[in-house]
Amino acid sequence: MPDRVYNFSAGPATLPYEVLQQASKDITNFKDLGIGLVEISHRSKEFMAVADTTSQLLRELMDIPDNYKILFLQGGASSQFFMVPMNLLGRNKKASYLNTGTWAKKSIKEAKLFGDIDVAYSSEESNFNHVPAQDQYTVADDAEYLYFVSNNTIYGTQFRQIPETDKMLVSDMSSDILSRKIDVSKFGLIFAGAQKNLGPAGVTIVIIRDDLLDRVSDQVPTMLQYKTHAEKDSMFNTPPCFCIYAVGEVLKWLKNQGGVEAMERRNEEKAALLYDVIDSTEYYRGHALPESRSLMNVSFNLPSAELEQKFIAEALAAGMSGLKGHRSIGGCRASIYNAFPRKGVEELVNFMKNFARQNPE
Amino acid sequence: MPDRVYNFSAGPATLPYEVLQQASKDITNFKDLGIGLVEISHRSKEFMAVADTTSQLLRELMDIPDNYKILFLQGGASSQFFMVPMNLLGRNKKASYLNTGTWAKKSIKEAKLFGDIDVAYSSEESNFNHVPAQDQYTVADDAEYLYFVSNNTIYGTQFRQIPETDKMLVSDMSSDILSRKIDVSKFGLIFAGAQKNLGPAGVTIVIIRDDLLDRVSDQVPTMLQYKTHAEKDSMFNTPPCFCIYAVGEVLKWLKNQGGVEAMERRNEEKAALLYDVIDSTEYYRGHALPESRSLMNVSFNLPSAELEQKFIAEALAAGMSGLKGHRSIGGCRASIYNAFPRKGVEELVNFMKNFARQNPE
Repeated sequence: MPDRVYNFSAGPATLPYEVLQQASKDITNFKDLGIGLVEISHRSKEFMAVADTTSQLLRELMDIPDNYKILFLQGGASSQFFMVPMNLLGRNKKASYLNTGTWAKKSIKEAKLFGDIDVAYSSEESNFNHVPAQDQYTVADDAEYLYFVSNNTIYGTQFRQIPETDKMLVSDMSSDILSRKIDVSKFGLIFAGAQKNLGPAGVTIVIIRDDLLDRVSDQVPTMLQYKTHAEKDSMFNTPPCFCIYAVGEVLKWLKNQGGVEAMERRNEEKAALLYDVIDSTEYYRGHALPESRSLMNVSFNLPSAELEQKFIAEALAAGMSGLKGHRSIGGCRASIYNAFPRKGVEELVNFMKNFARQNPE
Repeated sequence: MPDRVYNFSAGPATLPYEVLQQASKDITNFKDLGIGLVEISHRSKEFMAVADTTSQLLRELMDIPDNYKILFLQGGASSQFFMVPMNLLGRNKKASYLNTGTWAKKSIKEAKLFGDIDVAYSSEESNFNHVPAQDQYTVADDAEYLYFVSNNTIYGTQFRQIPETDKMLVSDMSSDILSRKIDVSKFGLIFAGAQKNLGPAGVTIVIIRDDLLDRVSDQVPTMLQYKTHAEKDSMFNTPPCFCIYAVGEVLKWLKNQGGVEAMERRNEEKAALLYDVIDSTEYYRGHALPESRSLMNVSFNLPSAELEQKFIAEALAAGMSGLKGHRSIGGCRASIYNAFPRKGVEELVNFMKNFARQNPE
């Protein structure tokens, strides 16, 4: 392995090195066919097998019931912000949304084009430093679904408990899918852009309960109907083949690592290492309130913007990249998705301790 | 180089081997940064430079005027079928379409959701075996644009002359972009899925005249407005990074090969080799009428379906894959895009001659 930096980027993010090595091989010559992976027809039996494996592994790892379809779409999670209400809400139909960050807010804006949107809770006034507890909001009686962003990458918050309601749940799990066990049967729809926990940017996974496929109006363009893709196993048009392949390789790796339960345990341990440093000093201050802390993104501040800049620069020089916080809240952020190694977290912890000692307030 | 087969697939299609080799290296360690290409943030200066290079090379190679924006979108060319009218037509506005094949027909279906669509010509009754000559159709006086598919992959037809009209042109150039010189200034919008002449599946190039960006209604979802992507240089959300990178590598290769003019000459020569065999015998019959013949896809039949099956199987055994015609017209098809080597065409020509001798009607 060449010298790999520890890449704390929020997404596109670090991937398992074994996956990159396999991709490196397959891209010039896939299964010794004399054709590179990205050159084979998406309708060849070789590629159909790739897509099928990816889908089956996801079903197995997330324990997705048979009455759910798995779709590989394009357009990023951002395209789901409008596709969800476009497909699931009719005119005058209502849905409840929890406004817990930038991505939730954007999805609310798009949803308003298609239905009556009830914002049941917003943490915007406290700079999105928490997600609501169960008793802090009420889902509208006539809501078709409750929409929430399970992990808020920018603010480093996460629903540590999945909301409880008798309504169907819809969730943007872009930044914590496969990081912990969830009960898919509580959801009508789950979506996730790949570039955090799943693979390279360019494919979005949609998991949808099959009875919802027929809700869409025939005035919606063919490509924007989930039904179109469900009926053709995501092969209505040419899918993003390389990304689907790479997600499949990540899922194989994840299974070999012990599956979602093993990941969840490891993620808890990795995050605890960082939150322990933050809690043991006044020097580092976490952005998220403790009960809303994300296991995926740890957003924190130093005593001053100057020290933050120095911290980020020295960390980079020490082989740790991507620690700059999102421009909307500044500071620092360590993204430690499934594929981020524990050893890198330990190195950051040591670096943080040393930096605090050497750069007093 | 391992034994490469000659891959005549219609798309995803063969790519230059140098490009695959470079990608193979960059995917594990990009520019010796210690991070793989698909792991770096799309907002890093390294990736911004990749996207910028890709865009600039395309502008240079196609001689795209300054008042055109180049966008890297997702969703395939199929998503452009609705995005074009959704962005360019208001309610009650008209556009003329030329129905020259499956993809044209699908785009007409989607366009009808957004405006008054005038089908100025259709070759459907003759199984799309030709595209119209200039005097065979009339563009509606009040049309906002004339839409045509410059090359019809399935039927092996191509507009060898770009339609002439005082209306703005809009074209799906998915299967012949960069294969010949065109005057971009005649077009309001050009789009192309990458997986034929540009790179791997997963990115769609849109070239749009900048005065058209403001036509869109604010009731259109943010991600579906060209304006959104134009204003953010295709970085409104995470773009399909690997595909943009790979397109850039293909464009570097194309430039080294002598650019579009050199490609055009070579494409003419390669196609002539195949059409010469077809014309020199009764054994092979081209699907397209001679004046509509495509330089990219050569669709042909043998005397019987049985012989076609045998032909495809024996060709595969001889190291030539992807020769099966599209299921909608059957027969055989050789797709010979820019990156398809002349030597492979020569081998196919020899194979065709031998096969005809050894398998008389």
